[in-house]
Amino acid sequence: MLLGSVEAGGTKFVCAVGNEDYQILDSTKFPTTTPKETLGRTIKYFKKFRGLQAMSIASFGPIELRHNSPKYGYITDTPKKGWSNVNFLGIMKKYFKFPIYWTTDVNGSAYGEYIMAGLFHHPVKCLAYYTIGTGVGVGEVVNGKFLGDLGHPEMGHVRVKRHPDDLNFKGICPYHGDCLEGLVAGPTFEARLGKKGPDVPLSNHVWDIMAYYVAQAAIQTTLALRPEVIVFGGGVVSEPFLRKVRHQFKILLNGYVDVGNLRNYIRMPAVENNGSATVGNFALALEESRK
Amino acid sequence: MLLGSVEAGGTKFVCAVGNEDYQILDSTKFPTTTPKETLGRTIKYFKKFRGLQAMSIASFGPIELRHNSPKYGYITDTPKKGWSNVNFLGIMKKYFKFPIYWTTDVNGSAYGEYIMAGLFHHPVKCLAYYTIGTGVGVGEVVNGKFLGDLGHPEMGHVRVKRHPDDLNFKGICPYHGDCLEGLVAGPTFEARLGKKGPDVPLSNHVWDIMAYYVAQAAIQTTLALRPEVIVFGGGVVSEPFLRKVRHQFKILLNGYVDVGNLRNYIRMPAVENNGSATVGNFALALEESRK
Repeated sequence: MLLGSVEAGGTKFVCAVGNEDYQILDSTKFPTTTPKETLGRTIKYFKKFRGLQAMSIASFGPIELRHNSPKYGYITDTPKKGWSNVNFLGIMKKYFKFPIYWTTDVNGSAYGEYIMAGLFHHPVKCLAYYTIGTGVGVGEVVNGKFLGDLGHPEMGHVRVKRHPDDLNFKGICPYHGDCLEGLVAGPTFEARLGKKGPDVPLSNHVWDIMAYYVAQAAIQTTLALRPEVIVFGGGVVSEPFLRKVRHQFKILLNGYVDVGNLRNYIRMPAVENNGSATVGNFALALEESRK
Repeated sequence: MLLGSVEAGGTKFVCAVGNEDYQILDSTKFPTTTPKETLGRTIKYFKKFRGLQAMSIASFGPIELRHNSPKYGYITDTPKKGWSNVNFLGIMKKYFKFPIYWTTDVNGSAYGEYIMAGLFHHPVKCLAYYTIGTGVGVGEVVNGKFLGDLGHPEMGHVRVKRHPDDLNFKGICPYHGDCLEGLVAGPTFEARLGKKGPDVPLSNHVWDIMAYYVAQAAIQTTLALRPEVIVFGGGVVSEPFLRKVRHQFKILLNGYVDVGNLRNYIRMPAVENNGSATVGNFALALEESRK
């Protein structure tokens, strides 16, 4: 069976064709420019393949995913220029007659990690996936379903207790200033230090400050959902950074609830090279084909 | 059909017998003393009724609610003297042979509000219930099921951004100091002002500070679950206080997601006089009787 995956990021699109074993048979990527050009390339790519039976699109957002909304399948009011109010799913459905699943980019990644845990670790019932990159996004899978009845989660925009050494930093979120995203997204390195994240060594105290905030986010998710795993992906995240997060998490939670082995609980994605969403898309497309 | 409800609080027990229309036919309450005396009175009360077909217990905690745990049905390591490691459900099952459902006190209340929304407002798929009293607890219903696979939610113990006029208050949570519970539970009035909550007029600035924290909790739950309703109950909560919470919520969320009419979204319990858990118990007992 041939399945299609569109990982539609704000910076680039990754399109792939795979099978029901989640193997990638072919893939391509290109920058996210105008909707017309980008969706045109997406359609052209998948038209090359005969026998595609379903597809899943994991898109940047915010998107409309309530089936009963007239805007279902749209990217809604995104800050990404030209992409507000674009009927992404509707356009794709004009060109492809097979079933197409529609969800957020982080939900796609969360689902990929949920599937991989079942295949290679032990199956989990509840998993959260954070991406920390240009922004902060969260996807949550509970018993095989995504959380979010009125819309997708936006846990990147919660407030956190400010670190005493960081009280003067106002944060960079255009909506909230010092919400989680405003304090730990990739561009905060330039706002705080005047240089890019990859140029800031892990010995810099700013990483401890960020770990303090990310640990609070992990605690919020722990105490709200009691998940079995919290996966952190995205450009800001590395295993050495997660060691700092685990350290802060342990201090802040203070043993209040049992989360098991912390190294398994707070961890990097099982799928390498940001491939979680592609695996998730294949799995979601497969399920959509069976509906 | 006769159904039993045990609302087991840390201060008092409320036992009731009702029917499948959630009507209370008889009830009693007594203080929570030793487990032997308190459970003895509970058993004696329900033994008076012939024809009880099921029961639900909504208990203070922390409790074990994982069915596969050998401690399922226990109150685990509670600070409440004498009640740690008490096999609450097991003792009840020795005396009653009908099905007994077991959950947390706030889950019971959340379920009662979920049921009432379906009966008297419009049915909801996702609802969160906060109680703010001696402590802070949260119950979350998603598609008729409680959230929390590894244990029940403990959203009372998240960190929040501190209010600039409250930075010197260290909080009263024995585990975390200034977590949400440590900042807004009932006993914080005495810790901050040296007098009890009911003696502090709503014009006192401390209520604005507390509303700032409770609004952040509402935002966390909003952005994690995207529920249709967040209900606030417990001794600290009143409609005038919730007006302050809504005001802060609106400022802090800054329109980032749509929650509909804020007066319906953040609201007092539909069941008056702290009766939500009894309604929830009747509904849960009814479902248990049908399994």
